[in-house]
Amino acid sequence: MIPFSERLTEAVRRKGAPACVGLDPHIDRLPSPFAVSSASSRGDAANAAKEFCLGVIDAVADVVPSVKPQVAFFEALGAPGVEALEAVVAAAQDAGLLVVLDAKRGDIGSTARAYARASLDPEGPVGADAVTLSPYLGPESLTPFVEATDSFGAGAFVLVRTSNPGAVAWQKGPAEGGPADAVAAWIAEQNASRLGGSGFGPFGPVIGATLPNEAAHWRRVMPNAWFLVPGYGAQGASAVDCRPMCRNDGLGALIVSARGVLFPSSGQDGESWKDEIRARATHFAGDLQENL
Amino acid sequence: MIPFSERLTEAVRRKGAPACVGLDPHIDRLPSPFAVSSASSRGDAANAAKEFCLGVIDAVADVVPSVKPQVAFFEALGAPGVEALEAVVAAAQDAGLLVVLDAKRGDIGSTARAYARASLDPEGPVGADAVTLSPYLGPESLTPFVEATDSFGAGAFVLVRTSNPGAVAWQKGPAEGGPADAVAAWIAEQNASRLGGSGFGPFGPVIGATLPNEAAHWRRVMPNAWFLVPGYGAQGASAVDCRPMCRNDGLGALIVSARGVLFPSSGQDGESWKDEIRARATHFAGDLQENL
Repeated sequence: MIPFSERLTEAVRRKGAPACVGLDPHIDRLPSPFAVSSASSRGDAANAAKEFCLGVIDAVADVVPSVKPQVAFFEALGAPGVEALEAVVAAAQDAGLLVVLDAKRGDIGSTARAYARASLDPEGPVGADAVTLSPYLGPESLTPFVEATDSFGAGAFVLVRTSNPGAVAWQKGPAEGGPADAVAAWIAEQNASRLGGSGFGPFGPVIGATLPNEAAHWRRVMPNAWFLVPGYGAQGASAVDCRPMCRNDGLGALIVSARGVLFPSSGQDGESWKDEIRARATHFAGDLQENL
Repeated sequence: MIPFSERLTEAVRRKGAPACVGLDPHIDRLPSPFAVSSASSRGDAANAAKEFCLGVIDAVADVVPSVKPQVAFFEALGAPGVEALEAVVAAAQDAGLLVVLDAKRGDIGSTARAYARASLDPEGPVGADAVTLSPYLGPESLTPFVEATDSFGAGAFVLVRTSNPGAVAWQKGPAEGGPADAVAAWIAEQNASRLGGSGFGPFGPVIGATLPNEAAHWRRVMPNAWFLVPGYGAQGASAVDCRPMCRNDGLGALIVSARGVLFPSSGQDGESWKDEIRARATHFAGDLQENL
Protein backbone atom coordinates (compact mmCIF):
# COMPACT_ATOMS: atom_id res chain seq x y z
CA MET A 1 0.00 0.00 0.00
CA ILE A 2 1.42 3.39 -1.00
CA PRO A 3 1.28 5.68 2.06
CA PHE A 4 -1.34 8.44 2.10
CA SER A 5 1.24 11.23 2.09
CA GLU A 6 2.74 9.87 -1.14
CA ARG A 7 -0.63 9.33 -2.77
CA LEU A 8 -1.61 12.88 -1.86
CA THR A 9 1.64 14.36 -3.14
CA GLU A 10 1.29 12.47 -6.41
CA ALA A 11 -2.37 13.47 -6.84
CA VAL A 12 -1.63 17.14 -6.13
CA ARG A 13 1.18 17.12 -8.70
CA ARG A 14 -1.02 15.43 -11.27
CA LYS A 15 -4.01 17.74 -10.79
CA GLY A 16 -1.77 20.80 -10.44
CA ALA A 17 -3.23 22.21 -7.20
CA PRO A 18 -3.58 21.12 -3.55
CA ALA A 19 -7.33 21.67 -3.59
CA CYS A 20 -9.82 19.80 -1.44
CA VAL A 21 -13.55 20.27 -1.95
CA GLY A 22 -15.55 19.98 1.26
CA LEU A 23 -18.67 17.82 0.93
CA ASP A 24 -21.07 19.49 3.38
CA PRO A 25 -24.56 18.47 2.30
CA HIS A 26 -26.55 21.09 4.24
CA ILE A 27 -29.93 19.61 3.58
CA ASP A 28 -31.65 23.00 3.33
CA ARG A 29 -29.14 24.42 0.84
CA LEU A 30 -29.11 21.75 -1.86
CA PRO A 31 -29.72 22.85 -5.47
CA SER A 32 -33.33 22.65 -6.60
CA PRO A 33 -33.12 19.19 -8.23
CA PHE A 34 -32.46 17.79 -4.72
CA ALA A 35 -34.86 19.95 -2.74
CA VAL A 36 -36.30 18.23 0.31
CA SER A 37 -38.54 19.79 2.89
CA SER A 38 -38.37 19.57 6.66
CA ALA A 39 -41.30 17.14 6.36
CA SER A 40 -39.25 14.70 4.27
CA SER A 41 -38.19 11.44 5.90
CA ARG A 42 -34.56 10.99 6.89
CA GLY A 43 -34.32 8.36 4.18
CA ASP A 44 -35.43 10.84 1.51
CA ALA A 45 -33.14 13.53 2.88
CA ALA A 46 -30.21 11.10 2.98
CA ASN A 47 -30.89 10.11 -0.60
CA ALA A 48 -30.90 13.75 -1.68
CA ALA A 49 -27.63 14.37 0.18
CA LYS A 50 -26.10 11.32 -1.47
CA GLU A 51 -27.21 12.20 -5.00
CA PHE A 52 -26.00 15.78 -4.57
CA CYS A 53 -22.59 14.60 -3.36
CA LEU A 54 -22.32 12.06 -6.20
CA GLY A 55 -23.00 14.91 -8.63
CA VAL A 56 -20.35 17.08 -6.99
CA ILE A 57 -17.85 14.23 -7.18
CA ASP A 58 -18.58 13.77 -10.86
CA ALA A 59 -18.19 17.51 -11.43
CA VAL A 60 -14.87 17.96 -9.63
CA ALA A 61 -13.08 14.63 -10.08
CA ASP A 62 -10.96 15.84 -12.99
CA VAL A 63 -10.19 19.16 -11.36
CA VAL A 64 -9.09 18.55 -7.76
CA PRO A 65 -7.19 15.76 -6.03
CA SER A 66 -9.37 15.32 -2.98
CA VAL A 67 -12.69 15.78 -1.20
CA LYS A 68 -13.55 16.12 2.48
CA PRO A 69 -16.97 14.80 3.53
CA GLN A 70 -18.17 16.41 6.76
CA VAL A 71 -19.54 13.50 8.80
CA ALA A 72 -21.89 15.63 10.93
CA PHE A 73 -24.23 16.38 8.03
CA PHE A 74 -24.61 12.69 7.25
CA GLU A 75 -24.84 11.66 10.90
CA ALA A 76 -27.69 14.14 11.44
CA LEU A 77 -29.72 11.98 9.03
CA GLY A 78 -29.25 8.82 11.09
CA ALA A 79 -28.54 5.37 9.68
CA PRO A 80 -29.66 6.30 6.12
CA GLY A 81 -27.26 9.25 6.30
CA VAL A 82 -24.39 6.99 7.31
CA GLU A 83 -25.28 4.65 4.46
CA ALA A 84 -25.16 7.67 2.13
CA LEU A 85 -21.75 8.63 3.52
CA GLU A 86 -20.42 5.14 2.82
CA ALA A 87 -21.67 5.36 -0.78
CA VAL A 88 -20.22 8.85 -1.25
CA VAL A 89 -16.78 7.84 -0.01
CA ALA A 90 -16.76 4.79 -2.27
CA ALA A 91 -17.80 6.85 -5.29
CA ALA A 92 -15.14 9.47 -4.62
CA GLN A 93 -12.44 6.83 -4.40
CA ASP A 94 -13.72 5.14 -7.55
CA ALA A 95 -13.38 8.52 -9.27
CA GLY A 96 -9.74 8.70 -8.21
CA LEU A 97 -10.23 11.23 -5.43
CA LEU A 98 -8.52 10.98 -2.05
CA VAL A 99 -11.07 11.15 0.75
CA VAL A 100 -10.36 13.02 3.99
CA LEU A 101 -13.16 12.09 6.40
CA ASP A 102 -13.87 15.15 8.53
CA ALA A 103 -14.94 13.42 11.73
CA LYS A 104 -12.81 15.11 14.42
CA ARG A 105 -12.95 11.93 16.46
CA GLY A 106 -11.02 11.57 19.69
CA ASP A 107 -11.06 8.90 22.36
CA ILE A 108 -8.60 6.46 23.95
CA GLY A 109 -7.90 2.74 24.12
CA SER A 110 -10.31 0.30 22.56
CA THR A 111 -12.75 3.13 21.77
CA ALA A 112 -10.12 4.96 19.73
CA ARG A 113 -9.33 1.73 17.93
CA ALA A 114 -13.03 1.35 17.11
CA TYR A 115 -13.02 4.87 15.64
CA ALA A 116 -9.94 3.98 13.58
CA ARG A 117 -11.74 0.91 12.28
CA ALA A 118 -14.89 2.96 11.63
CA SER A 119 -13.07 5.58 9.57
CA LEU A 120 -9.91 4.16 8.01
CA ASP A 121 -10.02 0.36 7.82
CA PRO A 122 -10.39 -0.59 4.13
CA GLU A 123 -12.43 -3.58 5.30
CA GLY A 124 -14.52 -1.35 7.59
CA PRO A 125 -17.66 0.60 6.69
CA VAL A 126 -15.97 3.73 5.30
CA GLY A 127 -12.31 3.12 4.53
CA ALA A 128 -11.39 6.76 4.00
CA ASP A 129 -7.87 7.70 2.96
CA ALA A 130 -7.45 10.02 5.95
CA VAL A 131 -9.46 11.22 8.94
CA THR A 132 -9.48 14.33 11.12
CA LEU A 133 -8.89 13.93 14.86
CA SER A 134 -9.48 16.06 17.96
CA PRO A 135 -6.66 15.66 20.50
CA TYR A 136 -8.14 17.01 23.76
CA LEU A 137 -7.73 13.61 25.46
CA GLY A 138 -3.96 13.76 25.04
CA PRO A 139 -1.39 11.69 23.16
CA GLU A 140 -3.24 8.46 24.03
CA SER A 141 -6.03 9.63 21.72
CA LEU A 142 -3.59 9.75 18.80
CA THR A 143 -1.33 6.73 19.31
CA PRO A 144 -4.05 4.23 18.24
CA PHE A 145 -4.01 6.04 14.90
CA VAL A 146 -0.27 5.49 14.50
CA GLU A 147 -1.03 1.80 14.28
CA ALA A 148 -4.01 2.43 11.99
CA THR A 149 -2.19 4.73 9.58
CA ASP A 150 0.73 2.29 9.44
CA SER A 151 -1.54 -0.71 8.81
CA PHE A 152 -3.85 0.89 6.29
CA GLY A 153 -1.47 3.31 4.55
CA ALA A 154 -3.82 6.04 5.74
CA GLY A 155 -3.35 9.59 6.99
CA ALA A 156 -4.63 11.59 9.96
CA PHE A 157 -5.01 15.34 10.36
CA VAL A 158 -5.05 16.47 13.98
CA LEU A 159 -6.57 19.76 15.16
CA VAL A 160 -3.72 22.09 16.15
CA ARG A 161 -4.67 25.71 15.65
CA THR A 162 -8.09 26.80 14.45
CA SER A 163 -9.12 30.29 13.43
CA ASN A 164 -12.39 30.74 15.33
CA PRO A 165 -11.86 33.75 17.63
CA GLY A 166 -12.13 31.88 20.95
CA ALA A 167 -9.72 29.12 19.99
CA VAL A 168 -6.46 30.85 20.87
CA ALA A 169 -7.38 31.18 24.55
CA TRP A 170 -7.72 27.40 24.86
CA GLN A 171 -5.23 26.14 22.24
CA LYS A 172 -2.65 28.92 22.75
CA GLY A 173 -0.61 30.36 19.92
CA PRO A 174 2.87 29.50 18.60
CA ALA A 175 5.45 28.78 21.33
CA GLU A 176 3.06 29.67 24.15
CA GLY A 177 3.34 26.24 25.77
CA GLY A 178 -0.27 25.28 25.12
CA PRO A 179 -1.85 22.24 23.51
CA ALA A 180 -1.22 23.59 20.00
CA ASP A 181 2.54 23.39 20.61
CA ALA A 182 2.24 19.96 22.22
CA VAL A 183 0.18 18.48 19.41
CA ALA A 184 2.47 19.99 16.77
CA ALA A 185 5.50 18.46 18.48
CA TRP A 186 3.75 15.10 18.62
CA ILE A 187 3.02 15.25 14.88
CA ALA A 188 6.58 16.21 14.01
CA GLU A 189 8.01 13.41 16.12
CA GLN A 190 5.71 10.72 14.70
CA ASN A 191 6.37 11.78 11.14
CA ALA A 192 10.16 11.88 11.53
CA SER A 193 10.44 8.09 11.51
CA ARG A 194 7.77 7.54 8.84
CA LEU A 195 8.76 9.69 5.88
CA GLY A 196 7.76 8.73 2.37
CA GLY A 197 9.85 9.49 -0.71
CA SER A 198 8.53 13.04 -0.97
CA GLY A 199 9.44 13.81 2.63
CA PHE A 200 6.02 13.75 4.26
CA GLY A 201 4.72 11.51 7.06
CA PRO A 202 1.20 10.20 7.76
CA PHE A 203 0.20 12.88 10.32
CA GLY A 204 -0.61 16.50 9.67
CA PRO A 205 -2.14 19.42 11.55
CA VAL A 206 -5.40 21.20 10.88
CA ILE A 207 -4.48 24.90 10.84
CA GLY A 208 -6.84 27.69 9.86
CA ALA A 209 -5.95 29.65 6.72
CA THR A 210 -6.95 32.91 8.39
CA LEU A 211 -3.84 32.90 10.62
CA PRO A 212 -1.16 33.93 8.11
CA ASN A 213 1.09 35.34 10.84
CA GLU A 214 1.38 31.92 12.42
CA ALA A 215 1.73 29.89 9.24
CA ALA A 216 5.49 30.04 8.85
CA HIS A 217 5.97 29.06 12.49
CA TRP A 218 3.85 25.93 12.16
CA ARG A 219 5.58 24.93 8.93
CA ARG A 220 8.96 25.27 10.65
CA VAL A 221 7.80 23.14 13.59
CA MET A 222 6.25 20.45 11.37
CA PRO A 223 8.51 20.38 8.31
CA ASN A 224 7.39 16.92 7.25
CA ALA A 225 3.63 17.26 7.49
CA TRP A 226 0.87 17.85 5.02
CA PHE A 227 -1.33 20.58 6.56
CA LEU A 228 -5.10 20.50 6.21
CA VAL A 229 -6.20 24.11 5.84
CA PRO A 230 -9.80 25.26 6.12
CA GLY A 231 -10.71 28.93 5.83
CA TYR A 232 -10.14 29.72 2.16
CA GLY A 233 -12.71 31.72 0.20
CA ALA A 234 -16.06 32.01 1.95
CA GLN A 235 -14.23 32.07 5.29
CA GLY A 236 -11.96 34.94 4.29
CA ALA A 237 -8.47 33.68 3.43
CA SER A 238 -6.78 33.99 0.03
CA ALA A 239 -4.33 31.66 -1.67
CA VAL A 240 -1.58 34.15 -0.84
CA ASP A 241 -2.50 33.85 2.86
CA CYS A 242 -1.91 30.11 2.59
CA ARG A 243 1.49 30.39 0.92
CA PRO A 244 3.60 30.40 4.12
CA MET A 245 2.06 27.05 5.06
CA CYS A 246 3.78 25.39 2.09
CA ARG A 247 7.27 24.04 1.78
CA ASN A 248 9.62 25.93 -0.54
CA ASP A 249 8.55 23.68 -3.39
CA GLY A 250 4.93 24.78 -2.94
CA LEU A 251 3.74 21.45 -1.57
CA GLY A 252 2.45 20.68 1.92
CA ALA A 253 -0.84 22.56 2.39
CA LEU A 254 -4.10 20.94 1.34
CA ILE A 255 -6.51 23.86 1.06
CA VAL A 256 -10.22 23.27 1.65
CA SER A 257 -13.16 25.05 0.12
CA ALA A 258 -16.67 23.85 0.87
CA ARG A 259 -19.37 26.52 0.75
CA GLY A 260 -17.49 28.55 -1.88
CA VAL A 261 -17.70 25.63 -4.29
CA LEU A 262 -20.98 24.02 -3.23
CA PHE A 263 -23.23 26.94 -2.37
CA PRO A 264 -22.61 30.22 -4.18
CA SER A 265 -24.46 33.27 -2.98
CA SER A 266 -26.26 33.53 -6.32
CA GLY A 267 -28.85 30.89 -7.19
CA GLN A 268 -28.05 27.51 -8.66
CA ASP A 269 -31.57 26.46 -9.33
CA GLY A 270 -31.31 25.28 -12.88
CA GLU A 271 -30.19 22.00 -14.34
CA SER A 272 -26.78 23.63 -14.77
CA TRP A 273 -25.89 23.29 -11.06
CA LYS A 274 -23.21 20.71 -11.83
CA ASP A 275 -21.56 22.89 -14.49
CA GLU A 276 -21.53 25.74 -12.00
CA ILE A 277 -19.88 23.61 -9.34
CA ARG A 278 -17.31 22.41 -11.82
CA ALA A 279 -16.61 26.00 -12.86
CA ARG A 280 -16.14 27.12 -9.27
CA ALA A 281 -13.89 24.12 -8.47
CA THR A 282 -11.83 24.95 -11.56
CA HIS A 283 -11.52 28.56 -10.44
CA PHE A 284 -10.53 27.42 -6.91
CA ALA A 285 -7.83 25.06 -8.22
CA GLY A 286 -6.60 27.67 -10.70
CA ASP A 287 -6.28 30.27 -7.96
CA LEU A 288 -4.18 27.90 -5.86
CA GLN A 289 -2.06 26.89 -8.84
CA GLU A 290 -1.33 30.51 -9.68
CA ASN A 291 -0.95 32.11 -6.26
CA LEU A 292 0.19 29.50 -3.79
CA MET B 1 -39.67 19.69 29.16
CA ILE B 2 -38.03 19.02 32.52
CA PRO B 3 -34.31 19.85 32.21
CA PHE B 4 -31.82 16.99 32.09
CA SER B 5 -30.15 17.97 35.35
CA GLU B 6 -33.49 17.70 37.17
CA ARG B 7 -34.41 14.44 35.51
CA LEU B 8 -31.03 13.02 36.44
CA THR B 9 -31.26 14.23 40.04
CA GLU B 10 -34.72 12.73 40.38
CA ALA B 11 -33.68 9.41 38.80
CA VAL B 12 -30.60 9.13 41.01
CA ARG B 13 -32.70 9.77 44.13
CA ARG B 14 -35.29 7.23 43.04
CA LYS B 15 -32.79 4.47 42.18
CA GLY B 16 -30.64 5.32 45.18
CA ALA B 17 -27.26 5.61 43.42
CA PRO B 18 -25.66 7.80 40.74
CA ALA B 19 -24.69 4.79 38.67
CA CYS B 20 -24.31 4.78 34.90
CA VAL B 21 -23.73 1.53 33.01
CA GLY B 22 -21.56 1.95 29.92
CA LEU B 23 -22.90 0.18 26.85
CA ASP B 24 -19.71 -0.78 25.01
CA PRO B 25 -20.61 -3.67 22.72
CA HIS B 26 -17.11 -4.93 21.97
CA ILE B 27 -18.12 -7.32 19.26
CA ASP B 28 -15.49 -9.91 20.20
CA ARG B 29 -16.41 -9.95 23.89
CA LEU B 30 -20.16 -10.54 23.75
CA PRO B 31 -21.58 -13.44 25.81
CA SER B 32 -21.88 -16.72 23.94
CA PRO B 33 -25.56 -16.30 22.93
CA PHE B 34 -24.44 -13.35 20.79
CA ALA B 35 -21.18 -14.74 19.47
CA VAL B 36 -20.26 -13.50 16.01
CA SER B 37 -17.07 -14.22 14.14
CA SER B 38 -14.83 -11.87 12.22
CA ALA B 39 -16.38 -13.39 9.09
CA SER B 40 -19.87 -12.23 10.09
CA SER B 41 -21.41 -9.41 8.08
CA ARG B 42 -21.66 -5.97 9.66
CA GLY B 43 -25.42 -6.45 9.68
CA ASP B 44 -25.11 -9.65 11.73
CA ALA B 45 -22.60 -8.07 14.06
CA ALA B 46 -24.80 -4.99 14.51
CA ASN B 47 -27.75 -7.20 15.31
CA ALA B 48 -25.73 -9.07 17.93
CA ALA B 49 -24.57 -5.77 19.46
CA LYS B 50 -28.13 -4.53 19.54
CA GLU B 51 -29.60 -7.67 21.10
CA PHE B 52 -26.85 -7.74 23.72
CA CYS B 53 -27.48 -4.10 24.64
CA LEU B 54 -31.24 -4.65 24.79
CA GLY B 55 -30.59 -7.52 27.20
CA VAL B 56 -28.32 -5.33 29.33
CA ILE B 57 -30.96 -2.60 29.42
CA ASP B 58 -33.56 -5.10 30.53
CA ALA B 59 -31.20 -6.41 33.21
CA VAL B 60 -30.21 -3.05 34.71
CA ALA B 61 -33.26 -0.82 34.19
CA ASP B 62 -34.57 -1.33 37.72
CA VAL B 63 -31.16 -0.95 39.30
CA VAL B 64 -29.46 2.14 37.83
CA PRO B 65 -30.72 5.52 36.60
CA SER B 66 -28.72 5.77 33.38
CA VAL B 67 -26.73 4.14 30.62
CA LYS B 68 -23.95 5.47 28.39
CA PRO B 69 -23.74 3.96 24.90
CA GLN B 70 -20.26 4.37 23.40
CA VAL B 71 -20.90 5.49 19.82
CA ALA B 72 -17.58 4.24 18.44
CA PHE B 73 -18.52 0.58 18.83
CA PHE B 74 -21.72 1.11 16.87
CA GLU B 75 -20.09 3.36 14.28
CA ALA B 76 -17.46 0.70 13.58
CA LEU B 77 -20.31 -1.47 12.27
CA GLY B 78 -21.41 1.13 9.72
CA ALA B 79 -25.01 2.04 8.92
CA PRO B 80 -26.43 -1.15 10.53
CA GLY B 81 -24.49 -0.26 13.67
CA VAL B 82 -25.97 3.23 13.73
CA GLU B 83 -29.42 1.74 13.26
CA ALA B 84 -28.69 -0.54 16.23
CA LEU B 85 -27.61 2.49 18.28
CA GLU B 86 -30.88 4.27 17.50
CA ALA B 87 -32.84 1.20 18.65
CA VAL B 88 -30.76 0.83 21.81
CA VAL B 89 -31.25 4.46 22.83
CA ALA B 90 -35.00 4.23 22.24
CA ALA B 91 -35.25 0.99 24.26
CA ALA B 92 -33.27 2.49 27.16
CA GLN B 93 -35.51 5.54 27.28
CA ASP B 94 -38.62 3.35 27.07
CA ALA B 95 -37.26 1.47 30.08
CA GLY B 96 -37.00 4.76 32.00
CA LEU B 97 -33.23 5.12 31.74
CA LEU B 98 -31.51 8.41 31.00
CA VAL B 99 -29.18 8.04 28.03
CA VAL B 100 -25.79 9.77 27.91
CA LEU B 101 -24.49 9.37 24.37
CA ASP B 102 -20.72 9.03 24.56
CA ALA B 103 -19.78 10.64 21.27
CA LYS B 104 -17.10 13.19 22.25
CA ARG B 105 -18.12 15.33 19.31
CA GLY B 106 -16.61 18.73 18.71
CA ASP B 107 -16.88 21.15 15.81
CA ILE B 108 -18.05 24.72 15.22
CA GLY B 109 -20.83 26.61 13.44
CA SER B 110 -23.29 24.73 11.28
CA THR B 111 -21.30 21.51 11.74
CA ALA B 112 -21.66 21.69 15.51
CA ARG B 113 -25.37 22.35 15.08
CA ALA B 114 -25.59 19.24 12.89
CA TYR B 115 -23.92 17.20 15.65
CA ALA B 116 -26.39 18.64 18.17
CA ARG B 117 -29.25 17.59 15.91
CA ALA B 118 -27.65 14.17 15.37
CA SER B 119 -27.29 13.47 19.09
CA LEU B 120 -29.88 15.41 21.11
CA ASP B 121 -32.82 16.51 18.96
CA PRO B 122 -35.86 14.45 20.05
CA GLU B 123 -37.00 14.60 16.43
CA GLY B 124 -33.55 13.60 15.20
CA PRO B 125 -32.19 10.09 14.74
CA VAL B 126 -30.99 9.48 18.31
CA GLY B 127 -32.53 11.99 20.71
CA ALA B 128 -30.29 11.13 23.66
CA ASP B 129 -30.81 12.85 27.01
CA ALA B 130 -27.21 14.08 27.09
CA VAL B 131 -24.06 13.88 24.98
CA THR B 132 -20.32 14.05 25.62
CA LEU B 133 -18.31 16.77 23.89
CA SER B 134 -14.62 17.37 23.16
CA PRO B 135 -13.70 21.07 23.47
CA TYR B 136 -10.37 21.37 21.63
CA LEU B 137 -11.86 23.80 19.10
CA GLY B 138 -12.62 26.33 21.83
CA PRO B 139 -15.78 27.89 23.24
CA GLU B 140 -17.34 28.09 19.76
CA SER B 141 -17.52 24.29 19.81
CA LEU B 142 -19.69 24.41 22.93
CA THR B 143 -21.98 27.42 22.39
CA PRO B 144 -24.12 25.63 19.76
CA PHE B 145 -24.92 23.12 22.50
CA VAL B 146 -26.18 25.87 24.80
CA GLU B 147 -28.96 26.44 22.32
CA ALA B 148 -29.51 22.69 21.92
CA THR B 149 -29.61 21.89 25.63
CA ASP B 150 -31.99 24.83 26.19
CA SER B 151 -34.30 23.79 23.33
CA PHE B 152 -34.35 20.07 24.02
CA GLY B 153 -34.05 20.04 27.82
CA ALA B 154 -30.88 18.03 27.27
CA GLY B 155 -27.48 17.88 28.97
CA ALA B 156 -23.88 17.94 27.78
CA PHE B 157 -20.75 16.61 29.47
CA VAL B 158 -17.56 18.27 28.25
CA LEU B 159 -14.10 16.70 28.56
CA VAL B 160 -12.17 18.59 31.22
CA ARG B 161 -9.63 16.34 32.95
CA THR B 162 -9.06 12.76 31.94
CA SER B 163 -6.98 10.23 33.78
CA ASN B 164 -4.91 8.73 30.97
CA PRO B 165 -1.25 9.40 31.89
CA GLY B 166 -0.44 11.75 28.97
CA ALA B 167 -3.51 13.93 29.43
CA VAL B 168 -2.15 16.26 32.09
CA ALA B 169 0.62 17.59 29.83
CA TRP B 170 -1.96 18.76 27.28
CA GLN B 171 -4.98 19.57 29.49
CA LYS B 172 -2.97 20.84 32.48
CA GLY B 173 -4.05 20.26 36.08
CA PRO B 174 -6.07 22.41 38.46
CA ALA B 175 -5.25 26.14 38.36
CA GLU B 176 -2.40 25.66 35.90
CA GLY B 177 -3.93 27.96 33.30
CA GLY B 178 -4.51 25.23 30.74
CA PRO B 179 -7.58 24.16 28.80
CA ALA B 180 -8.94 22.17 31.76
CA ASP B 181 -9.28 25.39 33.76
CA ALA B 182 -10.77 27.26 30.80
CA VAL B 183 -13.36 24.61 30.04
CA ALA B 184 -14.30 24.30 33.72
CA ALA B 185 -14.80 28.07 33.94
CA TRP B 186 -16.96 27.97 30.81
CA ILE B 187 -19.16 25.23 32.32
CA ALA B 188 -19.56 27.08 35.62
CA GLU B 189 -20.49 30.30 33.86
CA GLN B 190 -23.06 28.69 31.56
CA ASN B 191 -24.68 26.79 34.41
CA ALA B 192 -24.94 29.82 36.69
CA SER B 193 -27.82 31.29 34.72
CA ARG B 194 -29.53 27.96 34.02
CA LEU B 195 -29.98 26.26 37.39
CA GLY B 196 -32.82 23.86 37.96
CA GLY B 197 -34.56 23.41 41.30
CA SER B 198 -31.90 21.06 42.62
CA GLY B 199 -29.13 23.54 41.83
CA PHE B 200 -27.60 21.93 38.77
CA GLY B 201 -27.26 23.30 35.24
CA PRO B 202 -27.24 21.52 31.86
CA PHE B 203 -23.44 21.32 31.46
CA GLY B 204 -21.01 19.11 33.31
CA PRO B 205 -17.38 18.06 33.05
CA VAL B 206 -15.98 14.63 32.31
CA ILE B 207 -13.38 14.04 35.02
CA GLY B 208 -11.56 10.77 35.59
CA ALA B 209 -12.26 8.99 38.88
CA THR B 210 -8.61 8.10 39.24
CA LEU B 211 -7.64 11.69 40.10
CA PRO B 212 -8.91 11.89 43.71
CA ASN B 213 -6.44 14.66 44.58
CA GLU B 214 -8.02 16.95 42.02
CA ALA B 215 -11.65 16.07 42.69
CA ALA B 216 -12.39 18.61 45.43
CA HIS B 217 -10.84 21.38 43.33
CA TRP B 218 -13.05 20.67 40.33
CA ARG B 219 -16.16 20.46 42.52
CA ARG B 220 -15.30 23.86 44.03
CA VAL B 221 -14.81 25.39 40.57
CA MET B 222 -18.02 23.88 39.15
CA PRO B 223 -20.40 23.85 42.13
CA ASN B 224 -23.52 23.59 39.95
CA ALA B 225 -22.50 20.79 37.60
CA TRP B 226 -23.25 17.11 37.42
CA PHE B 227 -19.86 15.42 36.77
CA LEU B 228 -19.57 12.42 34.46
CA VAL B 229 -16.95 10.18 36.01
CA PRO B 230 -15.35 7.24 34.18
CA GLY B 231 -12.66 5.17 35.83
CA TYR B 232 -14.52 3.22 38.51
CA GLY B 233 -13.90 -0.48 38.98
CA ALA B 234 -12.02 -2.08 36.09
CA GLN B 235 -10.10 1.18 35.62
CA GLY B 236 -8.95 1.34 39.22
CA ALA B 237 -11.01 3.85 41.21
CA SER B 238 -13.23 3.07 44.19
CA ALA B 239 -16.44 4.72 45.32
CA VAL B 240 -14.47 6.40 48.10
CA ASP B 241 -12.16 7.94 45.46
CA CYS B 242 -15.23 9.48 43.83
CA ARG B 243 -16.63 10.98 47.04
CA PRO B 244 -14.87 14.38 46.79
CA MET B 245 -16.54 14.90 43.40
CA CYS B 246 -19.96 15.05 45.06
CA ARG B 247 -21.71 17.93 46.71
CA ASN B 248 -22.16 17.72 50.46
CA ASP B 249 -25.53 16.05 49.93
CA GLY B 250 -23.86 13.24 48.00
CA LEU B 251 -25.27 14.27 44.63
CA GLY B 252 -23.38 15.56 41.61
CA ALA B 253 -21.17 12.74 40.33
CA LEU B 254 -22.56 10.25 37.82
CA ILE B 255 -20.18 7.30 38.08
CA VAL B 256 -19.67 5.07 35.05
CA SER B 257 -18.87 1.39 34.94
CA ALA B 258 -18.75 -0.40 31.60
CA ARG B 259 -16.42 -3.38 31.45
CA GLY B 260 -16.88 -4.16 35.15
CA VAL B 261 -20.59 -4.72 34.57
CA LEU B 262 -20.61 -6.03 30.99
CA PHE B 263 -17.52 -8.19 30.76
CA PRO B 264 -16.32 -9.84 33.96
CA SER B 265 -12.98 -11.58 33.88
CA SER B 266 -14.65 -14.91 34.57
CA GLY B 267 -16.78 -16.47 31.86
CA GLN B 268 -20.38 -15.57 31.17
CA ASP B 269 -21.06 -18.25 28.65
CA GLY B 270 -24.28 -19.70 29.94
CA GLU B 271 -27.84 -18.59 29.53
CA SER B 272 -27.44 -16.82 32.86
CA TRP B 273 -25.45 -13.92 31.35
CA LYS B 274 -28.27 -11.48 32.01
CA ASP B 275 -28.62 -12.49 35.65
CA GLU B 276 -24.89 -12.02 36.05
CA ILE B 277 -25.01 -8.54 34.54
CA ARG B 278 -27.92 -7.63 36.79
CA ALA B 279 -26.02 -8.92 39.82
CA ARG B 280 -22.94 -6.86 38.92
CA ALA B 281 -25.00 -3.73 38.28
CA THR B 282 -26.69 -4.24 41.65
CA HIS B 283 -23.32 -4.61 43.33
CA PHE B 284 -22.05 -1.46 41.55
CA ALA B 285 -25.07 0.60 42.61
CA GLY B 286 -24.90 -0.77 46.13
CA ASP B 287 -21.24 0.14 46.45
CA LEU B 288 -21.98 3.72 45.38
CA GLN B 289 -25.00 3.94 47.69
CA GLU B 290 -22.94 2.77 50.64
CA ASN B 291 -19.60 4.49 50.06
CA LEU B 292 -20.16 7.64 48.05
